[in-house]
Amino acid sequence: MSPQRRSGLGTNQEAIRRHNLGTVLRHVHGAGQISRAELTSRTGLNRSTIAGLVGELESLGLSERTSPVEGVRQGAGRPSAGVRIAADGPYVIAVDLGVDRAVVARTGLGGRVLQRAHAAVDSDGEAWQVGAAVAALIRTVVEDAPASAPLVGIGISVPGLVRRSDGLIRLAPNLEWHDVSFGGIVLAALGLDVPVCLANDADLGALAEHTRGAGVGTGELIYVSGNVGVGAGIITGGQRLEGAGGYAGEVGHLRFNPDGRPCHCGSRGCWETEVGAHAIAAAIQCPPDKVAQLDEVLDGFDTPSAALRSTGTALGQGLASLVNMFNPQMVVLGGYFRSLYRLVAAEVDAGLVDRALPAPLESVTLSLPGLGSDSPLLGAAEIALEPLFTDPVAALGTALVDVQGRLAG
Amino acid sequence: MSPQRRSGLGTNQEAIRRHNLGTVLRHVHGAGQISRAELTSRTGLNRSTIAGLVGELESLGLSERTSPVEGVRQGAGRPSAGVRIAADGPYVIAVDLGVDRAVVARTGLGGRVLQRAHAAVDSDGEAWQVGAAVAALIRTVVEDAPASAPLVGIGISVPGLVRRSDGLIRLAPNLEWHDVSFGGIVLAALGLDVPVCLANDADLGALAEHTRGAGVGTGELIYVSGNVGVGAGIITGGQRLEGAGGYAGEVGHLRFNPDGRPCHCGSRGCWETEVGAHAIAAAIQCPPDKVAQLDEVLDGFDTPSAALRSTGTALGQGLASLVNMFNPQMVVLGGYFRSLYRLVAAEVDAGLVDRALPAPLESVTLSLPGLGSDSPLLGAAEIALEPLFTDPVAALGTALVDVQGRLAG
Repeated sequence: MSPQRRSGLGTNQEAIRRHNLGTVLRHVHGAGQISRAELTSRTGLNRSTIAGLVGELESLGLSERTSPVEGVRQGAGRPSAGVRIAADGPYVIAVDLGVDRAVVARTGLGGRVLQRAHAAVDSDGEAWQVGAAVAALIRTVVEDAPASAPLVGIGISVPGLVRRSDGLIRLAPNLEWHDVSFGGIVLAALGLDVPVCLANDADLGALAEHTRGAGVGTGELIYVSGNVGVGAGIITGGQRLEGAGGYAGEVGHLRFNPDGRPCHCGSRGCWETEVGAHAIAAAIQCPPDKVAQLDEVLDGFDTPSAALRSTGTALGQGLASLVNMFNPQMVVLGGYFRSLYRLVAAEVDAGLVDRALPAPLESVTLSLPGLGSDSPLLGAAEIALEPLFTDPVAALGTALVDVQGRLAG
Repeated sequence: MSPQRRSGLGTNQEAIRRHNLGTVLRHVHGAGQISRAELTSRTGLNRSTIAGLVGELESLGLSERTSPVEGVRQGAGRPSAGVRIAADGPYVIAVDLGVDRAVVARTGLGGRVLQRAHAAVDSDGEAWQVGAAVAALIRTVVEDAPASAPLVGIGISVPGLVRRSDGLIRLAPNLEWHDVSFGGIVLAALGLDVPVCLANDADLGALAEHTRGAGVGTGELIYVSGNVGVGAGIITGGQRLEGAGGYAGEVGHLRFNPDGRPCHCGSRGCWETEVGAHAIAAAIQCPPDKVAQLDEVLDGFDTPSAALRSTGTALGQGLASLVNMFNPQMVVLGGYFRSLYRLVAAEVDAGLVDRALPAPLESVTLSLPGLGSDSPLLGAAEIALEPLFTDPVAALGTALVDVQGRLAG
């Protein structure tokens, strides 16, 4: 922890003020609506400082005041006035790039989806074609945006390994992409210059579930995503576990069965060869062109076949490795694992209990995502909003207004 | 991140001052000796604040001043005076409890081992017998301690799962201990009342290697320990990954070979059944009574047998799962893996390269421990010293002086 600076030059004080401004905004964003008294309590800042910061957020168009609620009194004091996210404030574009389709949402503070669109993606298409399709969706979702509302940035969820330093997609196996600068491709297709950030879909699923899904307040969480490939996003100590380059969480390539099937990674018997979409599709005779919609196919089943039950066992046994390794409080099952778990919960639970050590098993809960299938999308919104919580003044300085006019021009 | 508090009541200011005092002491502890200018630069506190804090550390008997070194000038200013750890300052007792022996060290700030002792431990003995043996070693290492030097606490490294909330040993498989309050047993055998903290040996190995071993400055580090059982300590974002209860890092029970040998955990084919000490001992016809000294047995080999080479491959393949999962910068091979790696480095490297994904493989280095076999011992010292870095005044308030007299009485 860095020490609390008690004195400094003017620039330091300005940096601290902006940091505090962003911290207050993060609390309003997390809660949607919050009283000043609660902000005082959560931040440790005093009432007059909070009043000043809230006033500045309001003048920046980031928040609005709400009336004090009668009856909600803090001790003997006056009822505390409230703060909520501004109605026509800044927004971001969140993109969930899947293997067969892309979902795009204009999203405001508080995680509010304001407008959304989706389209099929040709997984054999080249990156520039997919980029053009995503850009078209972005044009659609900004159509009804107020001209005065600033676009802060674009966040993109990617089914693959993303280098943290520059957002390069190192590998998206099911799109057959290697070293693709997809962020630049989308910006070029739009003709816009705004901040764009990319991250792995499971990492973003974990972030969203931790911020506003099933795992709010859960410092140790794993989001395991079945999404053609299998990956995990890990929250530990309340923070994303990213690893040295941003590639942490590739649990699909845990060694699971050394005599198993070859994996696309070049290895053999990875966990993904047992619980990945292709393995499950083969087990249930799902046609290859439906693999990317495995969740919908699974939702059509009433009773699981022996093959599906066996997949459930393998899912639980692999989760046991994660539980032994990370000792999480919660494991969230995302992607088609949502649908699979509904069918074979007993087998998943039994596989987990069979292989996990008793001590870490005690405290873990399996959960479905609180945000349904939107976790990666809302995680993409979170990373695009992040600059507003670091320094709102700077983030608004680089934001674009009249986006629709610029896109038309 | 919590906001920087810019105002508050007197109690807040006192808390901030103590926090800053601990932060400065942590820097002196890490460096052993450091200039005031460097402290200013590392903490962001201004020169007069640093001067005040350094003076207070000195008056608390925690540090000493060193003369300014001629030629070491900060810009155009005067040569900066230095600070180093006080010679007869506070100390802690570090205990490395192994399966067959215990090592105990009186350790000062800066990680200096001042006196050490070890003894055989009967792994069939009951916890109170082991506790009595450890207490006898503690009596030995405090014999030459100055009566005025305060004992801050005891840190114990345990070959098993330790509950973070209260230090209960939930399971130490090779000692056959379940739910043992070993800290309390040692204190009772000593007749002392000082803070005692326990943690898993691999977790402490990771902490020590990160603080003053091979991984200084490495934010993403895994210390994998072969120590009869196999476990890992994980540093991510510069912090220990502990999990919900403190049990994270049980990599020995990663599923490795579903058709493999039964594991003592009740499962089958865990990684530990392939690279654990019993597996290796069987592979090299090592007699059972030598398993706990496997490192020495391995050091006697010049050329590896085919069985050892195959174990090296299994070690590398399992490390690949860790690399895929955590994307570390460094993997430190501790315990008997140090000796094994010297013999079969080529096989370990090949197993790793074969199974790791290219992106996380790029940035990872395999390393031997910088602290030799002392990593868990010095990690135990670190956790016992920790209260001094949180609040030195409070830690000294609960410390004991004249420990030898108290033990004699």
